[in-house]
Amino acid sequence: MIPIVSIVGKSNSGKTTMIEKLVPELVRRGYRVATIKHDVHGFEVDREGKDSWRHKQAGAHTVIISSPQKLALIRDMNHDAELAELRDRFIQEVDLILSEGFKRSNQPKIEVYRKEIHPDLLCTAEDNLLAIGSNQPIDIGVPCFALDDAKGIADLIEKKFLQKTPSPKVQLRVNGKEVPLTPFVQKSIQNTVRGMLSSLKGCASPQTVDLKIDPD
Amino acid sequence: MIPIVSIVGKSNSGKTTMIEKLVPELVRRGYRVATIKHDVHGFEVDREGKDSWRHKQAGAHTVIISSPQKLALIRDMNHDAELAELRDRFIQEVDLILSEGFKRSNQPKIEVYRKEIHPDLLCTAEDNLLAIGSNQPIDIGVPCFALDDAKGIADLIEKKFLQKTPSPKVQLRVNGKEVPLTPFVQKSIQNTVRGMLSSLKGCASPQTVDLKIDPD
Repeated sequence: MIPIVSIVGKSNSGKTTMIEKLVPELVRRGYRVATIKHDVHGFEVDREGKDSWRHKQAGAHTVIISSPQKLALIRDMNHDAELAELRDRFIQEVDLILSEGFKRSNQPKIEVYRKEIHPDLLCTAEDNLLAIGSNQPIDIGVPCFALDDAKGIADLIEKKFLQKTPSPKVQLRVNGKEVPLTPFVQKSIQNTVRGMLSSLKGCASPQTVDLKIDPD
Repeated sequence: MIPIVSIVGKSNSGKTTMIEKLVPELVRRGYRVATIKHDVHGFEVDREGKDSWRHKQAGAHTVIISSPQKLALIRDMNHDAELAELRDRFIQEVDLILSEGFKRSNQPKIEVYRKEIHPDLLCTAEDNLLAIGSNQPIDIGVPCFALDDAKGIADLIEKKFLQKTPSPKVQLRVNGKEVPLTPFVQKSIQNTVRGMLSSLKGCASPQTVDLKIDPD
């Protein structure tokens, strides 16, 4: 499961700037990073008059622009998705997700703090707060880094979330929820499913398997 | 599996305009439609200076902007994805996909044709060509509709692809490729997997199941 760290802070505290420093530091260390920005006000990313903009204006639910180097997708949503849902449905092939905002989520957080912007912190140590990035020392029982100490914060993230533990070979979601599996159960499911499939045409050696079962 | 119809045609023939007419006609009939635009030249959708643009500039592999009404995603790709891959990885909750371009794919196609733009058709009847939209009658053995006859073309698409047939309850991809399953095999896999999982904690009645197995 791709780990998520939320960069939170009161408005104008410098969350985007923190992410702009953290991402290249993590990329330099060989990690692939996704970011998620929460926007409650609605937003416009596409450009008026472009073909994809015209598709969306015509009423398409989802619009994709696909090139060999890049993909863009714009789609309707009917609810405010949580971070874990966004990860599970839309993010692949990265090592870490940094979110900007989502202060109400239960994911681990780093708060960006500048006293001259807001006198109080947004989080307490109980809010799954990993660390603070601040322009002055502040002690509430979690590490405090200078605002521009991307290296120190990346060290912390790397140590906590990016040590190479073997990722599970079997991932299972039942009725939409991830089910944690012990290595023994993983192996047992892997053997059962591969055995069951091996007699199907075109499945002589089922390595990667994606199986979806919907309700009757 | 969500059906795909490709709107193809030589450059400047009116593909986007055709999609702009077809989408609202299909939406009016109660269908949800996704569109996919092929762009070989690279593109820019986000706006300079926005937070999400700054995340991507900083080196993020994937950037998501999430609001309660809308989601936008921009990500790096390392190959020119085919339509079926884009459908399987990125599109959910729609009834039909219309692509603009992708003339080399093997999906069913509708060619947009205006003789004064290019004297020759792009496709032959052998190219899985369903129909032609043209500003003059043309007979190569497939139905020919007027360019503005969105109703006629939508009728054809509806009849061929949107009649409510029960969608398969079990979808299987092995080593990345979709494996067609008879109803008997679907039922057998469904029973085996649900039985196997029913004794796991939190899986008392496994309805929806998503299972991923990766190589050792």
